[in-house]
Amino acid sequence: MEVELYDTTLRDGAQTQGISFSVPDKIRITEKLDSLGIHYIEGGWPGANPKDIEFFKKAKSLKLKNSSLAAFGSTRRANTKVDKDATIKELLRSEVDVLTIFGKSWDLHVKEVLKTTPDENLKMIEESVNYLKSRGKFTIFDAEHFFDGYKANPEYALRTILAAERGGADRIVLCDTNGGTLTSNVFEIVEEVKKKVKAPLGIHSHNDSEMAVANTIAAVQAGCVHVQGTMNGYGERCGNANLISIISNLKLKLGVNCISDLSLKELTETAYYVAEMCNMKLDDNQPFVGSSAFAHKAGVHVNAIMKNPRTYEHMDPSSVGNKRVLLISELSGKSSILKKAKEIDLELDKEAPQTKKILGALQDLEHKGYHFEAAEASLELFMKRSMKKFKRFFELSDFRVIIEKRSKRKITSEATIKLKVNNKLEHTASLGDGPVNALDNALRKALKDFYPTLAEMHLTDFKVRVLDEKQGTAAKVRVLIQSQDKTDSWWTIGVSENIIEASWQALVDSVEYKLLKDSEKK
Amino acid sequence: MEVELYDTTLRDGAQTQGISFSVPDKIRITEKLDSLGIHYIEGGWPGANPKDIEFFKKAKSLKLKNSSLAAFGSTRRANTKVDKDATIKELLRSEVDVLTIFGKSWDLHVKEVLKTTPDENLKMIEESVNYLKSRGKFTIFDAEHFFDGYKANPEYALRTILAAERGGADRIVLCDTNGGTLTSNVFEIVEEVKKKVKAPLGIHSHNDSEMAVANTIAAVQAGCVHVQGTMNGYGERCGNANLISIISNLKLKLGVNCISDLSLKELTETAYYVAEMCNMKLDDNQPFVGSSAFAHKAGVHVNAIMKNPRTYEHMDPSSVGNKRVLLISELSGKSSILKKAKEIDLELDKEAPQTKKILGALQDLEHKGYHFEAAEASLELFMKRSMKKFKRFFELSDFRVIIEKRSKRKITSEATIKLKVNNKLEHTASLGDGPVNALDNALRKALKDFYPTLAEMHLTDFKVRVLDEKQGTAAKVRVLIQSQDKTDSWWTIGVSENIIEASWQALVDSVEYKLLKDSEKK
Repeated sequence: MEVELYDTTLRDGAQTQGISFSVPDKIRITEKLDSLGIHYIEGGWPGANPKDIEFFKKAKSLKLKNSSLAAFGSTRRANTKVDKDATIKELLRSEVDVLTIFGKSWDLHVKEVLKTTPDENLKMIEESVNYLKSRGKFTIFDAEHFFDGYKANPEYALRTILAAERGGADRIVLCDTNGGTLTSNVFEIVEEVKKKVKAPLGIHSHNDSEMAVANTIAAVQAGCVHVQGTMNGYGERCGNANLISIISNLKLKLGVNCISDLSLKELTETAYYVAEMCNMKLDDNQPFVGSSAFAHKAGVHVNAIMKNPRTYEHMDPSSVGNKRVLLISELSGKSSILKKAKEIDLELDKEAPQTKKILGALQDLEHKGYHFEAAEASLELFMKRSMKKFKRFFELSDFRVIIEKRSKRKITSEATIKLKVNNKLEHTASLGDGPVNALDNALRKALKDFYPTLAEMHLTDFKVRVLDEKQGTAAKVRVLIQSQDKTDSWWTIGVSENIIEASWQALVDSVEYKLLKDSEKK
Repeated sequence: MEVELYDTTLRDGAQTQGISFSVPDKIRITEKLDSLGIHYIEGGWPGANPKDIEFFKKAKSLKLKNSSLAAFGSTRRANTKVDKDATIKELLRSEVDVLTIFGKSWDLHVKEVLKTTPDENLKMIEESVNYLKSRGKFTIFDAEHFFDGYKANPEYALRTILAAERGGADRIVLCDTNGGTLTSNVFEIVEEVKKKVKAPLGIHSHNDSEMAVANTIAAVQAGCVHVQGTMNGYGERCGNANLISIISNLKLKLGVNCISDLSLKELTETAYYVAEMCNMKLDDNQPFVGSSAFAHKAGVHVNAIMKNPRTYEHMDPSSVGNKRVLLISELSGKSSILKKAKEIDLELDKEAPQTKKILGALQDLEHKGYHFEAAEASLELFMKRSMKKFKRFFELSDFRVIIEKRSKRKITSEATIKLKVNNKLEHTASLGDGPVNALDNALRKALKDFYPTLAEMHLTDFKVRVLDEKQGTAAKVRVLIQSQDKTDSWWTIGVSENIIEASWQALVDSVEYKLLKDSEKK
């Protein structure tokens, strides 16, 4: 059996409280989902958000290998000509091949929200789908509130999707928009619908009853071949169905071939990557990919696990790129270091003691909260420093930052730094728009005469994540900085309980990476 | 239909990475669960943990109104006399009336972990149950790995629970110990078992496939009358089945009368209370009780919700003691401001110039990067301050933070603050793990004698987001802080180009919200 995956992290996921994507964020997530092999990536709702229009414009230059981009919108409004309807026009203007429109399947909504007649609603659905089809689009119909509608008035709910089918919909997606439907009902209703509709069916569920994943799997078992969800289950209220868990269950429990085995192994990394882009912490206990998902406490369980992992593990963690955690030290990881070394042209022998040493140091850093997956430039610097592959471009001695606020006056930030470059001591100070900016300014001031190419680079992104939130303001902080020059962009990282120190580490790496890169070119 | 609830937060929940209960913690949670009306509270494993022995001793003086305490352990060891077995003896020594013992239902475990014969395992089960029954105990048998065992060898798995039945077990609980079973399998297997066993059946599931709640509900639909789980789904790896969601689903979706309607309204408060005892942050998106569980973004949804809440809510949030949150964002207009005002008991006239002024000021702040939908407490403070609805609890005058790093020494952060409280000038200083922590410490130091209830609150989350990333280190920064006390959690916000100033704003709001909340209670 084949099931196709439809990701709506960029649209429904963006409804999560606290998530707000920039256009470059959306582009990066799109590329990641494409490399995972997601069949459809819903990029946004061009009618509702100017940022989404910009995204679809920029996305045209992407060369996606596996995915089709989809734009989201609604059927035409009541009593409007379909070719004059603003939403429909905006959808076509996005120029993507796959368009998804939602329409109402619950008579309560038709009456109380649309305030139109049941018949006009059916026309809105059929005409909108039909019009998009006539413009050559692959058209997906999302039947909003289908399950609630079916429970209230099965006949009318069915008529709405039959209208979409008459319009020529390529997929009809049954939505549990409010997330209140029990698994048993989802299964029964999908089975009933399947008897009456020929178009391939999809499922879109929400987690309000803590059943979104189970409901999705049940819908597939009842005949759905198209699955909508979001990475890590992001979404409004209690979230959407979590595609990470759905993919894992489909592949490992039902043997449904929705992504390749190789991609499955990328699942953990992908989950972290998207969380990072969303500026969210990945839950330790997230099924399949969380850092505690295969963590066993010492004692009976660990003992049994060492006899046979099946005794306390429902699956092999490595199949999704995750790993078992026992309270004894880990041994894995060597191959990924070797892989990275090869990438950056470092010769590293599998058996050399140096390899082991670097690996140990890296694991130590990752344990402290460094997350090199998101900061390749820092990883490269770390490995090259460990192997003494370059001479450091400067040596930091001291820094101090003073932030001061006096009654109604504007806050000020001043940084002082002392460093050695070419054996010369530089001692400079600078003001800034904040403490990190002041440090940045002071660092550039100290280095600019020695390394004029630094003028070419600038910082393009700056992300801050609190790691152990429970510690409140004493928590460890991870700072990611993206820098860019004329030819490249790169990410660097810093971790500390002190946000200024973490920023400083990432700042120094970003400058050092630029200098190293330039020196290697010569 | 009646279903009885069995909570194992104090035993299985305590396996969560990061949770560690003191005996007084366990006593307080027990009292809370009793007042909720949980039928059985599993207090611990007296054989495995000296703390648990102490708990059962102390618990004797508790006057529980609704709950029975249960102690957990295992069947006797292989080739041991049951009345000489250490675990069994320890169980009886706990002197509680309900004893729960687990035994092996999966032949793989019998062979590879117990390393005994299938027949001896059956004897261990029957004799252990029988012995506890003969000592007058209400005896619950947990069939460990029942579902995996049944999938591997249904005949043997059945024989293990028939052995427990012969021993006289009062309940036979089918466990999905590894959490790998799909909902459809749970349903089918429980149905099969039900045909062959007369003892009342229970279900115990884990969340490794993100299906623990759905699996529990399916098991009830197939005939289980006893449900095991933990508060908020705490537990090893991906957690146990979440009793909070199970209770809500049983009561509201299946009409099963497991706790009273009045207790149901205590569910949100209970979830926070237990989270607090566990020193865990309650997930905002937790179904039913999370702070975002009924949060709607402005626009189409809010509009519909105001016409009829059923349109986008699967249930009435107040039935579980939670509340609807309408998120105010850039797009929001006058009506959502009025709605918000009503929520916080502010009288605001639709046509009053004040309404317009507040709206204008709000839009201004949102334009500057404030994001009130994620910081309801700051919004409430803003509105009440604008309407002069309270006197500020303190007035900040100056602050200064110095962050210093000297060669190889550890970085230090020192904050100095000057503020007026009750017309008295307080001038204090404090060190911290970083600049924000230093400010936090100094602020509390200055206020603690005036407002002792501040000791009850602590910060549970701290998010930093860079707004205009392209500005690099000079970018504007948005800081969100979540705070929690015994009954609530709330988010506050600060925005500035200076991360320290942004943190300071959010910090001051979080403290002021707590003080305002407490003053309104009186």
